[in-house]
Amino acid sequence: MMEKLLAFSIGEYEERLAKVRSRMDTSEIDCLIVTHAPSICYLSGYAADTGFVPQALIIPPGAASPHLILRAQYQTAGYVMSCLPRENVHAYPESFIANAENNGFDFIVDLVQGIDPKSVGAEFGGVSWHTAEKFRRRLNAVRLVDATGIVNWVRLVKSPAEIELQRQAAAISDVAMRAAFNAFSSRTGATREYDVAARVMAALISGTPEFGGDVPHPVFMSGGDLTGSSHIFWTQRPLVDGRHYNVGLSGYRHRYAAPLMRTFCLGEPSSRLRRLHDHIDEGCENALSRLRPGALCGDVAEAFVSTIRKGGYDKSSRCGYPVGIDWLEPSLSLKMGSDDSIPENSVWHLNLGTWPEDDFGAVISETVLVTGDGNELLTSTPREILIC
Amino acid sequence: MMEKLLAFSIGEYEERLAKVRSRMDTSEIDCLIVTHAPSICYLSGYAADTGFVPQALIIPPGAASPHLILRAQYQTAGYVMSCLPRENVHAYPESFIANAENNGFDFIVDLVQGIDPKSVGAEFGGVSWHTAEKFRRRLNAVRLVDATGIVNWVRLVKSPAEIELQRQAAAISDVAMRAAFNAFSSRTGATREYDVAARVMAALISGTPEFGGDVPHPVFMSGGDLTGSSHIFWTQRPLVDGRHYNVGLSGYRHRYAAPLMRTFCLGEPSSRLRRLHDHIDEGCENALSRLRPGALCGDVAEAFVSTIRKGGYDKSSRCGYPVGIDWLEPSLSLKMGSDDSIPENSVWHLNLGTWPEDDFGAVISETVLVTGDGNELLTSTPREILIC
Repeated sequence: MMEKLLAFSIGEYEERLAKVRSRMDTSEIDCLIVTHAPSICYLSGYAADTGFVPQALIIPPGAASPHLILRAQYQTAGYVMSCLPRENVHAYPESFIANAENNGFDFIVDLVQGIDPKSVGAEFGGVSWHTAEKFRRRLNAVRLVDATGIVNWVRLVKSPAEIELQRQAAAISDVAMRAAFNAFSSRTGATREYDVAARVMAALISGTPEFGGDVPHPVFMSGGDLTGSSHIFWTQRPLVDGRHYNVGLSGYRHRYAAPLMRTFCLGEPSSRLRRLHDHIDEGCENALSRLRPGALCGDVAEAFVSTIRKGGYDKSSRCGYPVGIDWLEPSLSLKMGSDDSIPENSVWHLNLGTWPEDDFGAVISETVLVTGDGNELLTSTPREILIC
Repeated sequence: MMEKLLAFSIGEYEERLAKVRSRMDTSEIDCLIVTHAPSICYLSGYAADTGFVPQALIIPPGAASPHLILRAQYQTAGYVMSCLPRENVHAYPESFIANAENNGFDFIVDLVQGIDPKSVGAEFGGVSWHTAEKFRRRLNAVRLVDATGIVNWVRLVKSPAEIELQRQAAAISDVAMRAAFNAFSSRTGATREYDVAARVMAALISGTPEFGGDVPHPVFMSGGDLTGSSHIFWTQRPLVDGRHYNVGLSGYRHRYAAPLMRTFCLGEPSSRLRRLHDHIDEGCENALSRLRPGALCGDVAEAFVSTIRKGGYDKSSRCGYPVGIDWLEPSLSLKMGSDDSIPENSVWHLNLGTWPEDDFGAVISETVLVTGDGNELLTSTPREILIC
C-alpha cells in the first residue's frame, strides 16, 4: 500500500541536492529553508497544491536527508509524493492553520533551531514580510542569508530525464493545439469561446495514447478586439467569423511544461494580421538562429526585435525565459541588453507575442531545447496562422 | 471596440469601495495599497492572471477613483476588465520586469508619493519581504500601517449579485459532479484517472446551457490508498473496480466559486467506507443545523466533530471557511474554539473531509449560503456515496 509516485530516480534527486549544496557552500549557507513550491518539487518530488499554507523543505548541513514540513492534512501526500524517508516528512498541527499566534513557519523555525546551524539561507524574495520577520526574530542567533532563487539557477540546466518529460509535455501541447483547431473549425453560430476552451483543457489532460497530462495551466485565449491583451482567458462571447484568436497553452508532465502559442483565424486573415504575423514569424526564425550554447540572452531578443522593427512594430516585453517545472522559471530572461550566457540543455519558452495596438495583436511561441550545437523545437505544430 | 467586460454594475463596485473606505477610516489609513489579487478583482473587476509580477490597486484619500497599476503588457486587459476610468489604469514599463534595481513596486510607490497621503496601509502579510522593505524604505516619511486582510472582511458578506453568481457556479459544480459520475460509470479496464479528470474539467468550462464556466481550479481526485491524502490530483493509474475516489471540484463564474466534494465508489462500498461516510454525513447534518446568523464558528465545527467522535473518528483540520472570489477567502474559519460570529449572507465551504488513516479517507462538502433564518445549500448533488 501507498506506493511512492516519483517522477525521477532517487539518484536524480540526490544529484540535484548535491548541486544545491555546492551553491550553499559557495554562499556559506549551512542550512537552507526552501519555500518556493516548484523548488520543493524539484528537490523532493512533492507536487501537491498546498503552498497556500506554510510549507518548506529544509536542507541541513552535511549529508543528512532534507526535511519536508507540511500541514498535518498533507503529510500522507508527502509520504507518497516525496523521495524522502518517511521520518523526514514532518507535520505541524492543524491548530496552526488560521492562527495569528503560531503558524507552520514557527514549526519550521523550531526544526531549524534543533539542527543548530551556523548560518541559514531563506528565500526572502518569496516569503511574506510577516514570515521573514519571524525568521529574523526567531533565528537572530545565526547568520541569516537571503538565498532567493538559489535553486532556480540549478534548475536552469535540465537532465536527460527532465528533457524527456518536457518532450512528453510538448507532445501534449501539440495535441491540444490540434484540439483547438478542430473546435474552432467545427463551430456553429452557437459556439462560444468557452466551448473551445473546454475541449482544449480536456485534450491537455487526456494527453496522448501513451500518457495523460497532469494539472494544466488554464488555456490563454483572446479574440477580436481583445487580442491586444495578454494573459487573459476565454469569455462568454460567441465565436465570430473573420475574428482572430490568440491561444496559449501547455501540456504538463509531472509539473514540467512546454508552452506553445498560436494565432487562429476564423476564415481568411486580414492583410493587417498577415503582415504582423509574417514579421513575428521572420523574427522568430532570426531569434532561433541565435539561440545556442554560449549565446547572450540579449542577442536573441535583439534578433527578434530588430526584425519586427523593420515592419514598424516593436516589443518592449522580453522575448522568453527558461521553462521547466511550471510555466516560468525565474532565472535568466531573453531581454534586450542582457549579457547572460545561455547554457546547453536549458529549455526556453521563446514567447514572441506582439501587441502593436490596444485592440490588436498576434502570438507565436515555441518551447526550445538548447542542444550542443544549436537548438531543437520540442513541438511540431506549424508556425503559421491556423485558418479554421 | 473594446467593450468593458464587467461582472457587476458600477454602483456595486462603488458600494464595495465605500465599505473598504469606512474600514480605512477606522484604522486611520489615508491611502491603501491593495496587492491581494482576489481583492483587486473584488474592487475593480480586474481578473487576469497576472499576479506573478507586481500589480496593485491604490485607493487614494477622499472620493477619488482608485488607480490600477499593471505591467505595460496588461494595461489593455485593465481597460477591458476593470470598472475604472481609462486614465486610472497605469502601466509600468517592461524594462521593470526581471530587473533587480527597479520593479513595478517602485512605480507603485512613486504613484503613492505623488498622492502625498498622511498614512498608507499595505498588505504586509501578502507581499514579499523584499517588497515590504521597499515600502518601508521609500515611504518612511508617512505612517505605514499593516492592513493585511482589510478587504477580506468586507468580502465576507455577499451582495445579491454575488450570491446569484455563486448560484450559477454551484449549478456548474452539479453538472461537473454528474460528469464525474458518468465518466466513472462508463469505465473500461483501460480508463485512467486522467480520463475522468479530462471530462470533469471540460464540464466545468462547458457549464450549463445558460452559461459557461470561467477558469476552474483543477479537480482534486484521490483514489484507493491515496484517499488518505487531500489536495492531490489525478494520477496515471487505471481505474480499479472496488476502489473509492474522493473528488473535489468547483464551478466558477467571474472567479466566484461554489466547491463541492463527494466520494465515489466503483462498485459496492466496503463496510469500512460506509461506516465512515455515514458518520461524516450525520456530522454534516448536525453542522448544517447550527449554521445560521449569529452562530459561533466554533459551534458549527463542534457539531461535526462531536458527531464523528462517537464513531471513533476525529478531524483536527477546520470544518470550513468562507468562499467567494477564489476557493478560499481568508477571514473567518469554522474551527473548534472559534467564537467568531457568522453573518447573514456569508457563503461557506463546509468541508468535512475526514482522513482517519494514512491510506483511507472520505469526503463530503457543501457550499452553503447563510440566510436570514438558517441556511441554504447552493448545490443539489445527493449527499451519498456515488456508486458507479
